[in-house]
Amino acid sequence: MKKRSTKKQMAGLALVKKVALKRTVTRNRKPAVLKYLAWKNVEAEVLNPLLERQLIVGEEVMLARILLRKGCIVPMHSHVNEQLSATLEGALKFWIDGKEIVVRAGEVLVIPPNMPHKAEALEDTVAMDTFHPPRADWINKTDTYLRK
Amino acid sequence: MKKRSTKKQMAGLALVKKVALKRTVTRNRKPAVLKYLAWKNVEAEVLNPLLERQLIVGEEVMLARILLRKGCIVPMHSHVNEQLSATLEGALKFWIDGKEIVVRAGEVLVIPPNMPHKAEALEDTVAMDTFHPPRADWINKTDTYLRK
Repeated sequence: MKKRSTKKQMAGLALVKKVALKRTVTRNRKPAVLKYLAWKNVEAEVLNPLLERQLIVGEEVMLARILLRKGCIVPMHSHVNEQLSATLEGALKFWIDGKEIVVRAGEVLVIPPNMPHKAEALEDTVAMDTFHPPRADWINKTDTYLRK
Repeated sequence: MKKRSTKKQMAGLALVKKVALKRTVTRNRKPAVLKYLAWKNVEAEVLNPLLERQLIVGEEVMLARILLRKGCIVPMHSHVNEQLSATLEGALKFWIDGKEIVVRAGEVLVIPPNMPHKAEALEDTVAMDTFHPPRADWINKTDTYLRK
């Protein structure tokens, strides 16, 4: 049994390596402070013509409010950060763990650390994503995979 | 200066001790797995006539969708878990860090670990709270401070 699964495991590992993002966790997290924020006053960063996002960053948790226009594609990638992706409006199709899952308004996808995933907005979509730890590449704007 | 602040510090410590909840972090967290859930299919637990909640639990992050009827009071308490409280509908008044803050729809409060807070729903309210680590007392239903 062990031998038979080796090839598949190797292919899986190769896939993980290929899409694994680097430096998604910072070593210098800011200590927790009380913050009171309105989304309407949080800077919306335009990553590409179909993708905008806003961040609220705690010490160990980060909330991201993400606006994806219909047709927006988030390419296959993975990260050590655990991710809970809640669709608030619209529909987001994921390719993950060998499955295709459409996450619609009122639905949530719990994505374990290091699990490769790709997504496409089937409609104009608003998603609320939670990450632990906060995504250093999003905070530091080094997330080139989204800036295309 | 050091001497003059001692009394206040002691009072602060006493307050923290008095309202600090125990066993809000489990040692036996379940390993991360892919989950796809709709809030409409997640059990809604009725804690008291004014308070209901639903939980989606990851390994290091927990989402809670909380329904508070107008007049619902969450008594002063604290926990080691970092909390990001987002109001989706309604208005939630917090007493925290010596301040009164009303968190309305579209607003978020980042509550650091161990910071005592009390809340009251000024209207029927829906809140989406994120905790790190997951609240063991909510998962294990040992949160007697809310069951009154």
